[in-house]
Amino acid sequence: MDLRVVLVDPLYGGNVGSVARAMKNFGFHDLVLVNPPEIGGEARAMASHARDILESARTVDTLGDAIGGSLAVGTTGMSGEKEAEHIRMPALTPRELRDDLQEHEGVVSLVLGREDQGLSNEELALCEIVVSIPTSKEYPVMNLSHAATIILYELSNVRPGNVDLASHEDIDCFIEHLDRVLRIIDYREHKREKTLLMCRRILGRAVLTSREVSTLHGILRGCLRAIHGKR
Amino acid sequence: MDLRVVLVDPLYGGNVGSVARAMKNFGFHDLVLVNPPEIGGEARAMASHARDILESARTVDTLGDAIGGSLAVGTTGMSGEKEAEHIRMPALTPRELRDDLQEHEGVVSLVLGREDQGLSNEELALCEIVVSIPTSKEYPVMNLSHAATIILYELSNVRPGNVDLASHEDIDCFIEHLDRVLRIIDYREHKREKTLLMCRRILGRAVLTSREVSTLHGILRGCLRAIHGKR
Repeated sequence: MDLRVVLVDPLYGGNVGSVARAMKNFGFHDLVLVNPPEIGGEARAMASHARDILESARTVDTLGDAIGGSLAVGTTGMSGEKEAEHIRMPALTPRELRDDLQEHEGVVSLVLGREDQGLSNEELALCEIVVSIPTSKEYPVMNLSHAATIILYELSNVRPGNVDLASHEDIDCFIEHLDRVLRIIDYREHKREKTLLMCRRILGRAVLTSREVSTLHGILRGCLRAIHGKR
Repeated sequence: MDLRVVLVDPLYGGNVGSVARAMKNFGFHDLVLVNPPEIGGEARAMASHARDILESARTVDTLGDAIGGSLAVGTTGMSGEKEAEHIRMPALTPRELRDDLQEHEGVVSLVLGREDQGLSNEELALCEIVVSIPTSKEYPVMNLSHAATIILYELSNVRPGNVDLASHEDIDCFIEHLDRVLRIIDYREHKREKTLLMCRRILGRAVLTSREVSTLHGILRGCLRAIHGKR
């Protein structure tokens, strides 16, 4: 499969190197860094024979830049607890992610956050799919490269295919469309953002094809036509 | 499940600490070290909140001491290539291992070798089961703690049960019985050791119950009776 690994604000070069090694172990090569530390001797030592991946890694300014043109999969150790304050967000397990991505065509971005804090809720909100590794309640916080290794191990079993899954931009475009509809129907302002995020999560978990997104757009267009006709 | 993690000749304390962290992440606590390096600051730093596992780790002199009373699972990155010189040894994948150990009763030892050389053929020969992680041919050599993490992740899904699987000692005892039979039937001396290892591998992959081993002993006893009766 066509996988991009995105590290957001990694604190330690050694971890970036370790992730590069795990990527090469499972046949992945595209590494993108958002605000990385200096990539020096420790990073190269941990990368071992995967220095080529470190050297060809791209550095970008924002997570948005990193995941452009791809289906974005965010990772969290929170498994819905922290996020439950705002919205229900049951995350996929790595195995469920693997199953959902079978036969997917196009780039998938695997997004991993800071060693200490992970991804923020705002960063997770940019991702179509959220994945969480089931761990012991006694000590759920995994080493960054260990978490990456497990997901890369599962995704190394994904067969590339020609199922045209909806991209990040496709989902964005649909959510904007839905937002226009909510505004037109005078949906309660204080609930609108949460509802849009909930819809993004539902669509993310459903892993839609481009055709399905087109169909959903058609429903919204039909609603808008009907509303305008009545007014 | 009742899992023991055995590290044979680990070179770096940091890796021992990383393995301890991964163990605690997946709810495992029993760590045994064979000829470890000094467990100092680097080990404790990498263990993070799993220092208790480092502190309660036992150190033993030999792999035999470490795996006593358990079903031993050896790990290799070789997937049969190096070992093919001697004997065919298709290894289980971590997922197959997980499936085979469902409902197992008793201790399982997961044995991991040196960072640079892995386990020797002699050490692998002491293990009933051999497991290998499918990796890219371009760079198959994994970081020690990454390899441990993947197998621990898979084994965290094993339900403990009351299936009485044959132990290391049960298999040893059967192989000794088979050896006596081979000697009595004048099996070719230069093939005997290889054949015994092959049988050990086959029985390992089959993951036998104690009852099945008893049945196999019965067959050998029957053969011996028949042979003695004829002479």
